[in-house]
Amino acid sequence: MAGEDELIGRILRQLGHRPGKRMTPPGTRLVLGVGDDAAILRPASRFDWVVSTDFSLEDVHFHKITHPPEAVGYRALARAASDLAAMGAWPEFFLLSLALPPARAGRWLDRMLAGMSQAARRLGLRLVGGDTTRQPKVAIAITVLGRTRPGCAVRRDGARPGDRLYLSGKLGAAALGLELMLRNRTSRSPLRRNSRFPSFLNAHLYPNIPLGLGILLAENHLASAMIDLSDGLSTDLARLARASHVGARLWVDRLPMVPVPMSLERQGIDPLKLALNGGEDYGLLFAVRPGRAARVPRQFGRTRITCIGEITRSPQILLVDASGRKHALPAGGWDPFRQRRRTSLLP
Amino acid sequence: MAGEDELIGRILRQLGHRPGKRMTPPGTRLVLGVGDDAAILRPASRFDWVVSTDFSLEDVHFHKITHPPEAVGYRALARAASDLAAMGAWPEFFLLSLALPPARAGRWLDRMLAGMSQAARRLGLRLVGGDTTRQPKVAIAITVLGRTRPGCAVRRDGARPGDRLYLSGKLGAAALGLELMLRNRTSRSPLRRNSRFPSFLNAHLYPNIPLGLGILLAENHLASAMIDLSDGLSTDLARLARASHVGARLWVDRLPMVPVPMSLERQGIDPLKLALNGGEDYGLLFAVRPGRAARVPRQFGRTRITCIGEITRSPQILLVDASGRKHALPAGGWDPFRQRRRTSLLP
Repeated sequence: MAGEDELIGRILRQLGHRPGKRMTPPGTRLVLGVGDDAAILRPASRFDWVVSTDFSLEDVHFHKITHPPEAVGYRALARAASDLAAMGAWPEFFLLSLALPPARAGRWLDRMLAGMSQAARRLGLRLVGGDTTRQPKVAIAITVLGRTRPGCAVRRDGARPGDRLYLSGKLGAAALGLELMLRNRTSRSPLRRNSRFPSFLNAHLYPNIPLGLGILLAENHLASAMIDLSDGLSTDLARLARASHVGARLWVDRLPMVPVPMSLERQGIDPLKLALNGGEDYGLLFAVRPGRAARVPRQFGRTRITCIGEITRSPQILLVDASGRKHALPAGGWDPFRQRRRTSLLP
Repeated sequence: MAGEDELIGRILRQLGHRPGKRMTPPGTRLVLGVGDDAAILRPASRFDWVVSTDFSLEDVHFHKITHPPEAVGYRALARAASDLAAMGAWPEFFLLSLALPPARAGRWLDRMLAGMSQAARRLGLRLVGGDTTRQPKVAIAITVLGRTRPGCAVRRDGARPGDRLYLSGKLGAAALGLELMLRNRTSRSPLRRNSRFPSFLNAHLYPNIPLGLGILLAENHLASAMIDLSDGLSTDLARLARASHVGARLWVDRLPMVPVPMSLERQGIDPLKLALNGGEDYGLLFAVRPGRAARVPRQFGRTRITCIGEITRSPQILLVDASGRKHALPAGGWDPFRQRRRTSLLP
């Protein structure tokens, strides 16, 4: 079995590069990277730092038999970077704490790091430090550092009554991919043959993080409040509304729901519940003052941006159906400390 | 069972305070703390950031039946802060990722947070963000942020042949405390009655982190290279020497070894092995140019500072015994990916 120093060498061979696509304008200097007791960063003046941290734990966020190691590495970094997107921050650096059993310190680790390396290049993040240790299950903790021009970061608490509510991307693809993957593992159903399966699966395994859109919204002061969709629209919208001391109205027929194949609907997958409560799509949910709504692009790259509702003074979250009837919308997304989901997606 | 938001509320009640003892000169402004997608920090100009991250995992770094929850919280933060001490950085902020089972989200969590809160006040660190989730065993990941004046941070790679080698504190107390605690758990031996037991135990459970000494050495350009003693003198000295492309000579009779009671020596605890390979004392090991050695204090607060050897051009690490004979010193401290210790402390 290799020692810790060899393990660190292995990590550096895969993650020790500068990210190919450097999204951030040049400025922050990496005085000292991986290998000492801590990293030293010399910030460019007149920038704020944005920092966040995220766990990716085996049997909580991924499973050994369903998740390819490349996806474990990719998702771990992407999920953490999503918090930078939600602030509209430029990505800069990350730290990686990694615990794993010796049996996975070889080929599995190399494949996991290859996935993380791909994410690092794509997201423009550079490894500057970390910690490695051994335990029976894999645990990954990622801390990301980004930056914004002072006053540009978009918080959750800036929404005001009358603001329009927007969403990037589609709802439900990642949750559908996860459900299908978990079903496929245990049953012999022919789900894998469904032609949309790979795209649903990829939405879960290799989520797209809209960092560029976040920066555009932040630097142009378009978003008054923003959050990333990690735990499900109903839950994340409730968080944004609570932080802003407001409520919201969602129009059902405007929700950009992923098209669920008929065969899956027959198996009991409800597209609306999937859209409202399915998590991990990592789109951005943001509020915009009415006077600025015209400046919000309808499309960013290949990602659609949709107006799905509005902010209200009354603190409830309401769902307005096609006939104009209003329904209270409970937070039904992911909460690790309650049951898996308060409202099930599936029968 | 409380939901995640209630859990976060619980954490904030205990850790949401400003640290009482603010070691850092005023400067960095916390624009936005816990509760949003990420924290926003506005750095004072002309400072470098120092960042590091550290795991504290159940059954790796602590055990449920031996470690009081307060000590788990205290140690987790202290261990991470030790990396700031090793750079000579002012402590500023920390992020806490916490995974735990629902059964420990009540009283156990409150006690753990109380210990961490005590450490935060003592170390001058302020919580600015984190992540919480659920899993069967407790996992804590801490990221610390500190700062130094540009050019003042002390790295591992600055030692040169002829430099004197210094150490703060004593060697072996924490490892002895851990061994005694683990023995005491399984046997009915009267170790607890040993009068030194509490101080050994405290050295392990509530380690003292010499942040002030690190800052003094850094800001006065006294240390040419520095590392904290986390994995054991033999292992950490090898790391410093390797980074600096040098070797070192240690004088056995200068090593500040913890006095091992005769009754324990008879049980096979070798004070020298304990001093060389016992980890987690969290003292500072640093090199000093000969011309500056006279300026190194002999004492810092209640902590003794001892010259234990010198840096050599030849890359070996040698131990010089009282009669002047030289012995090669293998790195025998803690390495999670090898056996527990390459050289056992105990029979």
